[in-house]
Amino acid sequence: MADVKYDVLGIGNALFDVLVRTDEAFLARHGMTKGGMSLIDEARAAAIYKDMGPATEVSGGSAANTIVGIGSLGAHAAYVGKVKDDQIGKLYVHDIRAAGVAFNTPAAKHGPATGCSYILVTGDGERTMNTYLGAAQDLSPADIDPAEIASAGIVYLEGYLWDPKNAKDAFVKAAKIAHDAKRKVALTLSDSFCVDRYRDEFLSLMRDGTVDIVFANESELHSLYMTSDFDTALKQLRNDVNLGVVTRSEKGCVVVSPGDAVAAPAFPVRQVVDTTGAGDLFAAGFLFGLARNLAYKQCGELGALAAAEVIQHIGARPQVSLKELAQQRGLTV
Amino acid sequence: MADVKYDVLGIGNALFDVLVRTDEAFLARHGMTKGGMSLIDEARAAAIYKDMGPATEVSGGSAANTIVGIGSLGAHAAYVGKVKDDQIGKLYVHDIRAAGVAFNTPAAKHGPATGCSYILVTGDGERTMNTYLGAAQDLSPADIDPAEIASAGIVYLEGYLWDPKNAKDAFVKAAKIAHDAKRKVALTLSDSFCVDRYRDEFLSLMRDGTVDIVFANESELHSLYMTSDFDTALKQLRNDVNLGVVTRSEKGCVVVSPGDAVAAPAFPVRQVVDTTGAGDLFAAGFLFGLARNLAYKQCGELGALAAAEVIQHIGARPQVSLKELAQQRGLTV
Repeated sequence: MADVKYDVLGIGNALFDVLVRTDEAFLARHGMTKGGMSLIDEARAAAIYKDMGPATEVSGGSAANTIVGIGSLGAHAAYVGKVKDDQIGKLYVHDIRAAGVAFNTPAAKHGPATGCSYILVTGDGERTMNTYLGAAQDLSPADIDPAEIASAGIVYLEGYLWDPKNAKDAFVKAAKIAHDAKRKVALTLSDSFCVDRYRDEFLSLMRDGTVDIVFANESELHSLYMTSDFDTALKQLRNDVNLGVVTRSEKGCVVVSPGDAVAAPAFPVRQVVDTTGAGDLFAAGFLFGLARNLAYKQCGELGALAAAEVIQHIGARPQVSLKELAQQRGLTV
Repeated sequence: MADVKYDVLGIGNALFDVLVRTDEAFLARHGMTKGGMSLIDEARAAAIYKDMGPATEVSGGSAANTIVGIGSLGAHAAYVGKVKDDQIGKLYVHDIRAAGVAFNTPAAKHGPATGCSYILVTGDGERTMNTYLGAAQDLSPADIDPAEIASAGIVYLEGYLWDPKNAKDAFVKAAKIAHDAKRKVALTLSDSFCVDRYRDEFLSLMRDGTVDIVFANESELHSLYMTSDFDTALKQLRNDVNLGVVTRSEKGCVVVSPGDAVAAPAFPVRQVVDTTGAGDLFAAGFLFGLARNLAYKQCGELGALAAAEVIQHIGARPQVSLKELAQQRGLTV
């Protein structure tokens, strides 16, 4: 088994976030499902954007947010995702690399522009995402470098990768390389509607051992097992995967494995400004803890801390060093 | 005298802000003067950006920030500034128009990219700006539409316009049109280093009546009259212009005219996150009040409110409706 070069390597849809604070009426006017992620085409993206107020832009993408968080905590991290070689793609590449994350996926020279997610943040801090995949659509198995994957202790994949046409092949290729190298594979279920679209495939990935670790929030878990009963769903998750990590917003998280179940509390926040990236940053803290062989409870506390930072400002990327923040709070990093 | 179509029309350098939180060491390493605005070329922009951490992007530009603030308070406003027809230029145009501001300056089809300001925000909230003018360099008298200028009650100009090669001609052309139409012309001195570069010209503009209203902060005022004594400088300002508005950070503002002098307090803030746009938004509130014929003290209070909103988050554009905010605070809008 070769040396671990990266504690965690993430693969996901590379998306530039265009965020705006708005009201419920906007969501209703555009027929949006509050709190969800909808895939949109270029025409709908243009229509939504035209009606949006003045925006703030921050690089995003679920797995990318997680990986940047892991880098901010002080670990070695790498990202695989597809942008175009355009102005927005250059901003995106900068933001990942500036976080100390290795990012070597070649940018597309042709085809659609760098993908964007148009994110509406309502007064309660909830975010509703409308994603134009753009160049992310073209992530393919050719973008998976076997040596890079094999050098990562944990390979982290987002469920959203099931949406672009070739990315699931990249996902499966990466998972196989990782397991051949005796590494761990983690998956986030991403979104309850994403689970609706790919339920059987996600369950197969878990049951056939393609993924070892699953991150889910309550609604994703309920969607996965088509039950409204949390305990029933949690029990099934425990049977289906080596390690299940379930976030429950202000109720904290529950971590289940065949021989263990622990909970960790959420971190108090002064004001929820924008929940975009909450789950992503929770996963960042948790995966960082796993990479450092911390106890699950400590992993959960780091996840809670990182999530708390990101929901107190606009955008899904940390605005301060998470390593310093954790040290200030007396957490192990 | 034709009807007023716009309460205020602003002319300035259209700049996209790339903001990052950093430390004093970064400023020292790059030889930056903390709190100032430095003009940089493309090569230096690339070098600074390469060394910057993960960023947040928000449309900016001094006069544009002011105009968007005036729109957010509920007035009719228009903007004149030059971007390129590129991805960032499109974001910029969106953000101005989405604020309800008229923006009809044609985007450049050729030449340099849309201008950017690379803004370093230190722990104390102070911002240090490094501006690559890009397409803003090409604002020219041809971009000044006489009918549009003549239809604005107040034409607001930024001192930074003295930096690009042809913008001062656009400035002078606009001021003449405005005065021929019996409108008011306002100028912000922009930055103490900008005053250093163009002191004599700014004083001439004031003394020959090209501008009626001047906005300055304390350091700009001291630079203008080359004195460290506030009262001496204020007395000279009072002689040189019909209306002088001087901001003093947490000490509030002082408004002087030949027959009057009033002060207004600053607005309390919970935490100064990023001072970018503080002066711009103060001017927004003040000019809004002038357009509504409010007393100077009320104008100052509106300015203080708008400035307080913008320094409590990253970026120089308001994140909430300033009209609603003012109403909540019991101010007249």
